[in-house]
Amino acid sequence: MKLASLKHGRDGRLVVVTDDLTLMASVDDIAPTMQAALDDWPCVSPRLADRAAALSAGDNAQAMEFDPVACAAPLPRAYQWADGSVYLNHMELVRKARGAELPASFLTDALMYQGGSDIMLGARDDIEVIDEEWGIDLEAEIAIITDDVPMGIVPDGAAGHIKLVLLANDVSLRNLIPTELGKGFGFFQSKPATSFSPVVVTPDSLGDAWDGRKMHGAVDVTVNDQRLGNLEAGADMYFDFAQLISHAARTRHLGAGTIVGSGTVSNRDRSRGSGCLAENRTIETIETGTPKTPFLKFGDRVTIDMRDAAGASIFGGIDQKIMRYTPR
Amino acid sequence: MKLASLKHGRDGRLVVVTDDLTLMASVDDIAPTMQAALDDWPCVSPRLADRAAALSAGDNAQAMEFDPVACAAPLPRAYQWADGSVYLNHMELVRKARGAELPASFLTDALMYQGGSDIMLGARDDIEVIDEEWGIDLEAEIAIITDDVPMGIVPDGAAGHIKLVLLANDVSLRNLIPTELGKGFGFFQSKPATSFSPVVVTPDSLGDAWDGRKMHGAVDVTVNDQRLGNLEAGADMYFDFAQLISHAARTRHLGAGTIVGSGTVSNRDRSRGSGCLAENRTIETIETGTPKTPFLKFGDRVTIDMRDAAGASIFGGIDQKIMRYTPR
Repeated sequence: MKLASLKHGRDGRLVVVTDDLTLMASVDDIAPTMQAALDDWPCVSPRLADRAAALSAGDNAQAMEFDPVACAAPLPRAYQWADGSVYLNHMELVRKARGAELPASFLTDALMYQGGSDIMLGARDDIEVIDEEWGIDLEAEIAIITDDVPMGIVPDGAAGHIKLVLLANDVSLRNLIPTELGKGFGFFQSKPATSFSPVVVTPDSLGDAWDGRKMHGAVDVTVNDQRLGNLEAGADMYFDFAQLISHAARTRHLGAGTIVGSGTVSNRDRSRGSGCLAENRTIETIETGTPKTPFLKFGDRVTIDMRDAAGASIFGGIDQKIMRYTPR
Repeated sequence: MKLASLKHGRDGRLVVVTDDLTLMASVDDIAPTMQAALDDWPCVSPRLADRAAALSAGDNAQAMEFDPVACAAPLPRAYQWADGSVYLNHMELVRKARGAELPASFLTDALMYQGGSDIMLGARDDIEVIDEEWGIDLEAEIAIITDDVPMGIVPDGAAGHIKLVLLANDVSLRNLIPTELGKGFGFFQSKPATSFSPVVVTPDSLGDAWDGRKMHGAVDVTVNDQRLGNLEAGADMYFDFAQLISHAARTRHLGAGTIVGSGTVSNRDRSRGSGCLAENRTIETIETGTPKTPFLKFGDRVTIDMRDAAGASIFGGIDQKIMRYTPR
């Protein structure tokens, strides 16, 4: 089953979408919003699946054309965005560029930060930034959404709480990060609103691309129509989503609608490119002593997408422009 | 005007409460939840104020007895919990105990971390913790709730976005903090669910206790009925709430219902005591080389309250027990 939130009020309007992303159907009578569906997933999801099946079977009385441009983020505001960093290659490169080793604890204890979740961007929304000099970067990530997760759950139990899979663009302001992390309290200003794919997919609809704990397949990333990365999502994911959920739930329950991110997808095979500009700059620094790739400028366009074996977009694709925001 | 959320479903049920916290009235016909009220504050708040005024005037047809025990957190789940640390005395002590100076930047750039907000505890809810050895501590804080705040707002503009004032217990797991902060991504496991006072108050109902940007008056903190602190909230608050909101909104819009915290209230006058056990332990370390005050144990009780000149509780008081949680 595939779902999306149309732009509507603060929380969007939930719709079911055909697997080929061409048609959608209203589900107002089942659940008005994605959050409402997640709050009551055991009851609601079978009814949504029935509606999706009817739509796919040609019950076109309710069918409307699906347009990703009309979509908000699947959860336009969420109660939790817990973003991991589980592609060790990315972290190793960043440290290598500054002459440091990866701490041994990074192999046993997942990295995760608490992200802002009060305003999430739709897949086609502009990324508004006040100052180009802040070092605007994209980060191509896989993410999942959970139902209610009890405190202290182990990874084997956590896997069953993965209800939806999606893509994320964890927009980062690189030049604000050193000062902010130096203060010791983690990211705040350096992580503005995050963007998500138009469509979320239930694990059972992902076929072989989902192994129960992680996503497989190529993540295509472009900047101004140039390929930045064609990354294999499953290849170098050191901690899987079940482990990330268990990590997040170590000392507290997690509410339904918790979004958990993988961190920037990154492969050891450098021919696959990068999921963010910072990684390119890091490789350039290691190889030549100086970063060459610029960060994003106003007007630049970034895309993140995954396609199935037939070349069709699975999640509808993220496609955003960087725009200047002027405070009033 | 004073408001509370009765325990009901995931988001509570909004009620207005008399200033003396004895009576409450239903506002189901105006706004079902605190979040719904904040989403439409300019329209909703005058109607809530009318209901509160009628209740205070003796319109007892709708009046019910108010009981803080029946209260959830004002926002039982919130879209944002942005917690500052603006009592420099607290930070200076922590650093002094380990022989470090306060960085000069701390005087110009507020400290703030992104807290988990998917599950908030009511003022009388138990604090469930799996392991006593994690170093369970309370943190007595003042907090405010905003409406929608635009990106890049300056402090003078931010002050007008403070819609509600409340108390917080920012529960911390001290023994998990060094490892977690050492990883560089800020707090996650070391900050379990936060607790809030039963009642929120509009700034105009706080009289002289609210100066437009910060709270004044004594915060009483006890552990097992022993006084831990009787702290003056306004005395040593280095950054005020307008500055904290401006800090949080530097690179992004803030959604209605954003909760902003002050960090542990802390006074330079040591006769006022402490707002958390860690500060006592820090002072003991500075004075004797060894911390003596233990962290909280299962069964321990903590209270946080502020009283007006007549001795009446302003926010209804936080009163919680630490309880062991055993994962299933």
